[in-house]
Amino acid sequence: MYELGVVYRNIRRADKAAADGLAQYGSATVHEAMGRVGLLKPYMRPIYAGAQVSGTAVTVLLHPGDNWMLHVVAEQIHPGDIVVAACTADNTDGFFGDLLATSFQARGARALVIDAGCRDVRTLTEMGFPVWSKAVSSKGTVKATLGSVNIPVVCAGMLVTPGDVIVADDDGVVCVPAAMASKTLEAAAAREANEGEKRAKLAAGVLGLDMYKMREPLAKAGLRYID
Amino acid sequence: MYELGVVYRNIRRADKAAADGLAQYGSATVHEAMGRVGLLKPYMRPIYAGAQVSGTAVTVLLHPGDNWMLHVVAEQIHPGDIVVAACTADNTDGFFGDLLATSFQARGARALVIDAGCRDVRTLTEMGFPVWSKAVSSKGTVKATLGSVNIPVVCAGMLVTPGDVIVADDDGVVCVPAAMASKTLEAAAAREANEGEKRAKLAAGVLGLDMYKMREPLAKAGLRYID
Amino acid sequence: MYELGVVYRNIRRADKAAADGLAQYGSATVHEAMGRVGLLKPYMRPIYAGAQVSGTAVTVLLHPGDNWMLHVVAEQIHPGDIVVAACTADNTDGFFGDLLATSFQARGARALVIDAGCRDVRTLTEMGFPVWSKAVSSKGTVKATLGSVNIPVVCAGMLVTPGDVIVADDDGVVCVPAAMASKTLEAAAAREANEGEKRAKLAAGVLGLDMYKMREPLAKAGLRYID
Amino acid sequence: MYELGVVYRNIRRADKAAADGLAQYGSATVHEAMGRVGLLKPYMRPIYAGAQVSGTAVTVLLHPGDNWMLHVVAEQIHPGDIVVAACTADNTDGFFGDLLATSFQARGARALVIDAGCRDVRTLTEMGFPVWSKAVSSKGTVKATLGSVNIPVVCAGMLVTPGDVIVADDDGVVCVPAAMASKTLEAAAAREANEGEKRAKLAAGVLGLDMYKMREPLAKAGLRYID
Amino acid sequence: MYELGVVYRNIRRADKAAADGLAQYGSATVHEAMGRVGLLKPYMRPIYAGAQVSGTAVTVLLHPGDNWMLHVVAEQIHPGDIVVAACTADNTDGFFGDLLATSFQARGARALVIDAGCRDVRTLTEMGFPVWSKAVSSKGTVKATLGSVNIPVVCAGMLVTPGDVIVADDDGVVCVPAAMASKTLEAAAAREANEGEKRAKLAAGVLGLDMYKMREPLAKAGLRYID
Amino acid sequence: MYELGVVYRNIRRADKAAADGLAQYGSATVHEAMGRVGLLKPYMRPIYAGAQVSGTAVTVLLHPGDNWMLHVVAEQIHPGDIVVAACTADNTDGFFGDLLATSFQARGARALVIDAGCRDVRTLTEMGFPVWSKAVSSKGTVKATLGSVNIPVVCAGMLVTPGDVIVADDDGVVCVPAAMASKTLEAAAAREANEGEKRAKLAAGVLGLDMYKMREPLAKAGLRYID
Repeated sequence: MYELGVVYRNIRRADKAAADGLAQYGSATVHEAMGRVGLLKPYMRPIYAGAQVSGTAVTVLLHPGDNWMLHVVAEQIHPGDIVVAACTADNTDGFFGDLLATSFQARGARALVIDAGCRDVRTLTEMGFPVWSKAVSSKGTVKATLGSVNIPVVCAGMLVTPGDVIVADDDGVVCVPAAMASKTLEAAAAREANEGEKRAKLAAGVLGLDMYKMREPLAKAGLRYID
Repeated sequence: MYELGVVYRNIRRADKAAADGLAQYGSATVHEAMGRVGLLKPYMRPIYAGAQVSGTAVTVLLHPGDNWMLHVVAEQIHPGDIVVAACTADNTDGFFGDLLATSFQARGARALVIDAGCRDVRTLTEMGFPVWSKAVSSKGTVKATLGSVNIPVVCAGMLVTPGDVIVADDDGVVCVPAAMASKTLEAAAAREANEGEKRAKLAAGVLGLDMYKMREPLAKAGLRYID
Repeated sequence: MYELGVVYRNIRRADKAAADGLAQYGSATVHEAMGRVGLLKPYMRPIYAGAQVSGTAVTVLLHPGDNWMLHVVAEQIHPGDIVVAACTADNTDGFFGDLLATSFQARGARALVIDAGCRDVRTLTEMGFPVWSKAVSSKGTVKATLGSVNIPVVCAGMLVTPGDVIVADDDGVVCVPAAMASKTLEAAAAREANEGEKRAKLAAGVLGLDMYKMREPLAKAGLRYID
Repeated sequence: MYELGVVYRNIRRADKAAADGLAQYGSATVHEAMGRVGLLKPYMRPIYAGAQVSGTAVTVLLHPGDNWMLHVVAEQIHPGDIVVAACTADNTDGFFGDLLATSFQARGARALVIDAGCRDVRTLTEMGFPVWSKAVSSKGTVKATLGSVNIPVVCAGMLVTPGDVIVADDDGVVCVPAAMASKTLEAAAAREANEGEKRAKLAAGVLGLDMYKMREPLAKAGLRYID
Repeated sequence: MYELGVVYRNIRRADKAAADGLAQYGSATVHEAMGRVGLLKPYMRPIYAGAQVSGTAVTVLLHPGDNWMLHVVAEQIHPGDIVVAACTADNTDGFFGDLLATSFQARGARALVIDAGCRDVRTLTEMGFPVWSKAVSSKGTVKATLGSVNIPVVCAGMLVTPGDVIVADDDGVVCVPAAMASKTLEAAAAREANEGEKRAKLAAGVLGLDMYKMREPLAKAGLRYID
Repeated sequence: MYELGVVYRNIRRADKAAADGLAQYGSATVHEAMGRVGLLKPYMRPIYAGAQVSGTAVTVLLHPGDNWMLHVVAEQIHPGDIVVAACTADNTDGFFGDLLATSFQARGARALVIDAGCRDVRTLTEMGFPVWSKAVSSKGTVKATLGSVNIPVVCAGMLVTPGDVIVADDDGVVCVPAAMASKTLEAAAAREANEGEKRAKLAAGVLGLDMYKMREPLAKAGLRYID
C-alpha cells in the first residue's frame, strides 16, 4: 500500500493447476466456494460480454492520470498472469488501450483488471483481450510519476497480493489468496458436482422449498400463509 | 410495506388479455398511454439487450443479502407472471442466478424485476430468462430472514401491487395498476395506430414543426429566429 | 449559455474535410491529437456498440422534461451534422425516440449527443442511428418551454460551440473547436502513421520500456528493482 | 401514485397523541419499534442539525422543476401536520424557500420532507422551520403543471399515505402508518424504558457481551479467540 | 477550454457596484433575476454555513492532483475577486488549504469556488475564508503541470468567463455574465422590493393561492377538489 | 480479509508517543508526511465539525446490516484505541449508536471510523464521541453473523492493519502503518516547523510564486503571460 518506486521481480504465484482451473467455475461459484469473500466491488464491469478467465495476479499501483507503470509491469508478466491495477485516487481516465494490450498479450497476460478507465474498447474486443474496469474513457494519460509493481494493492475495495488467483467473468471479479487456491478449486468443483441434478429437478418443477427442505425452517421462523 | 413474514396466496391478477397484450407496445408507449406515470427509476437495466415482456406482478420483499424469500415466491408464480422483488435497504448482492431462474422458468415466470443485483448473467442470457436489475454481482446471499410475498412493495421508487401489469424492455420497466390495464392497452394501441403514418412523413423530410403544427405556438411563446 | 428563446440559423461550420475525416481516428486519438483536451465526461455512453462518427455540431439547449426544442433544431440540421443537446438541469428523461430519429436521419444528421436520456433504443439500433447519452429511460417529455438552438452550450462538462466538430465512438465523445479541426486532423493522422509499426514490435514481444526508451528516465526517477 | 390533478380535502389523520408523542423518541427508536421498517432512504438530510419533530403527513406529488402544488397543499395543512413532497422524477431544484415556509408555518406545519431540493436555507434555519431534503439548490421552479395533494406517494423509497405519522431528526425520517401509530408509541416507550439502566451499566464498563448474554451464542456460532 | 500554459493578465471585470451589490440578494434571488440560468451544479457546497459573497471571477484551469496554477492565479487576484477553479477531469483532491488561503486573502480575494476538493477546513473556517467545493479531502497535490489563468472555464457545469460576477451562499453558486451584471442587480432589487409585504401577508395566514391569484388558473388546468 | 469468526486478542500497537502525537498535526499534514499515501476515501465524513484525534487501530469486519461484532470488538479496546470497522459489502445502515458509544468510551476508545452508517448523531455529538462514517441512518441492524476482530481490513479503500495509527479530523482519515508511525511523527513535525514563517510571509502579501521560487520552473515549462 505504501511503498512507491519499487518493482518486485520475484513473486510466489499460486499453484498453476488451481490458477488455471478456477476459470471454468466462474466468479459466483468461486466466491461461494471461498465462504463468500474476495469479491471486488460490483462497479468493475467487463468491456465485452462473455469473457471468463482466471490467472495469477501481477499487481501495479498507479497514480491518477499516469500510466507509466503499466509499461513497467508489462515486463513482469508471465504467461497465465492477469494484471491487477490499483490507483492512489479515484480516476476514470483511459490508462490502457490497444498498444498496451498488444504488449500484454504478447507477454502472455490473460486479462487486465483496472480500478480506473480503459479505451480502444472496440479494438480490445476484436483482439479478444478482456478488461474489467470501472469506466471507459478516451482520456489519455501521461508518463511522469512512479508507482510500484508487485506490492499488495487495494483494487476496487479488495486486497490483492501478487500471486493471488483472479477469477473474472460477466458477474464480476474475485480474488483468491494464493494459499487458498487449491482448496478453493476443490470446493468449487464440489459445489458444481451436484448442480446438474439440482437444475434438472428444478426444471421439472420441483420447488427449492422442497428440494432444500425449507418449509420447516420457514415455519419455525414464523412464516404465515394467508389465503 | 410493513408486514413481514406473510405470504398472500390469492391475489387478483389484472385482465390476462391486457397483461399479455401490453408487451408489444413497449415501456415507452405504455408509459405515455398511462399519462406519463408508472415508470421505475431508470437505473433498472436489462441484463441483455432485446427482451420485451409483459405479465402480472407477483411481489416479494427481501432483506439485504438474503434471498430466502425468492424460494418462497417461486411457489406463488402462475404462468405469465413477472416476479417483482424489492429490498428493505439499498443492496447490490447477486440474489438470483441460474438455478432460481430454472425454477422460475419452470413455474411459468416470464421475467424478474429486482431492485438489487443478480448473477450468472451469461447463463441467464443463454436460457432466455430476462432480468431487470440495478446491478450484476457475483456476491451470494444467505437464507436467514423472513420478508413477505404478495404485499404491495416499492421497487425502484414505484409502488407495485400484486397483480399489476409489468411492461419491460430495453428502455426500462413500467408498472400498470391492474384496474387500469385494459384502458391502458387501448390507449397504447391508439397511440401506435398512426405512428406508421407519422414515421413515413418524417422519413420523407416533413418536419415535426409542420406535422405537429408547432410553428404558431412557438412564435406565441416568443421564439425568435436570427439569421 | 444564457440566451433563451433564440434560434441561430447561420452558423460557421468547421472545414468539411476535417469534420468528415476525423471519424476514422476515433475519439481517443483525436483527444490526444488536441493535447488531451475536449473530452465530454465519460458518463456519456453509446446506446449500442460499434458506432464511430464525426460531424459538425448543431446545438440545442433543453429544459428538464421538455423536448420541444428538439423539433426546432431538426430544421437547422444540415447533412453531416451531429446534434448536441444540453439541459439546464440534471435530467434522465427519454427526450428522444424513434420518430425524432427518423426526422433527424431524414435531415442528414449522423448522430445525437445528449446530456440526458433517450428511449426506443432497440429501434434506434435497428435504424443505425447512434446516440450518446447519459441515460436510457422510457420517461416521456412535454413540449412547453423555450430553450435555444445554435448557442454555445455546456454538454457533459464541455463547452460546445455550433460548428465545432464532434467525434464519437465506443470510447466516448470529443469536441474539436472549428478553428482547430484541420490541424487536429493532421495531428491525428500523424499519430496513427507509425502505430502499425509500433503494434508489430509490441506483438513480437518488444517491451514499451525499450521501444519508448523508458528505462533511463525510470531509473532517474528512482525506480528500484528488487529480486 | 397515479392520479393527477386531484386534491383530497378530508384525510384520516393518525391519533393525535401518538402523532405528537413519537417525536421524543426520535427516528432510530421509532424505526426499531416498528420492526425495522418505515425508513426513508438515508440521502434525506436535515438542512440544519438538532431539529426533532413528529406530525401527521399531508402529501403532495410534484413534477420536476414545478412547485405549483406546494401552494395548493398549503391550504390543506392543519396545525401539527408535516408536508411530505414526492416528485415524479429525480430532481434537485429548489422547490421551497422562505416565503412558502412562512406560509406553511402560519398554517401550523411543523416541517417539510421533500424528495428534491430546497433553498433559502439560512433563512429557514433562522425561522426554525426544519426541512429534510435530498439537495439544497438555488434553482427556482415554475408554476405550470398539476400534481396531486393527499394521495399516497412514494417519497425517498417509502410509501407515505396521507395521515401517517412522520418522525424526523438528525438520523433521518421514518413513516409510521396511521393504524400503527399508537402501538408504535407504546413500543417506542417500552424500548426507551430501560435504556437508562443499560447506559449506566455500559458507562461503568460492563460489556454488551455480558449484559446481553452474547458469549454463548457467539461461541455456538463458532467464534474463536486467538491469543 | 483549450488553451494551456497561458495567463491572461488583463481581464475586463464586471461593473464594480454590481459585483459588490449582488451579494446581499443571495444566489437564489440572483438566479431568478437572471431568468433562472447561471447556476453551478448543486454538488458545490460551502465548507461552512452562513457565508454570503459576490465578486468578480478570476479563473484557473487545473489538472487533477496538481495545484501549481493556484499559485499562479494568486498574483492575478485584485481586491474583490473570487477565484473560480475548474479541473480537466473529475477529481476530489485537496488542492487548497490554509497557506494558499492566507495568500489569497492577502491579495484581496473574497472566496474560492473550486470544482474539486479543499482541505484545512477548520482553519479556513476560523480565518473566515469561504470555499465552495465538491469535496473535502486531506489528499495533497503536486506542482508539475501547466494549466491556464483567466481563460473561460466550465466549472461545475457552468461556463465562467473571467470578469463575470460570482454570487455564492448556503444555497449554491451563480455566475452572472459581466454584461448582465448591472441589469441583474436591478432585477434582483426589484424582486426583493415587495418580498417583505408578501412575507407579512403569508405570515398572517393569507394563502399563496389567493395572494398570487392561482385559483382560477388551477381550475382551468383541471384541478379537482374531492371531499 | 478472508478469515471469518476469529478474534485476535494480542496485537502489536504502534509506538504510543507517535500514536498520541500525530493528532496535533491533522490528517492533511500527516498524509503529506507519509509521501501522500494512506488516505481513506473522502466520502468518510465526521458526524460533527471540529474533532481531531489519533490513536491505535483495533479493527472489525462486519456484514451488511449486522452489528454483532461491534460488541465483540468492544472488549478488545485499550485506552487510546480507535475502532476501524469495515463491511463485506456496501451498506449504509446505522450500525452504531449512543449505547455502543457509551461502551466504547468507557473502554477508552477515542473514536470510531466505520465504512457504513451510524445513528444517534445528536447524542454522540453531546457525548463528544466522534465518528467518521459514510452515512447517517436510523436503520438498525441485527446480531446474527460472525465477522472478525483484529484482522487486516480494507476500510474506505485503504488497508488497515490492527495496531496502525489512525489520524482523523474535518479533512478526513489517514492510516499510518505502525512501523512508520515514529518516522511520520518526525516528518509531520518538520513540515509544521516552518509553516508559521511561511504563513506570515504570505499574509504580508509575498506570493508563493516568489517564496517557493516557482517563476523559473514555470517559465521553463512554457508558461506565457499575455497582457
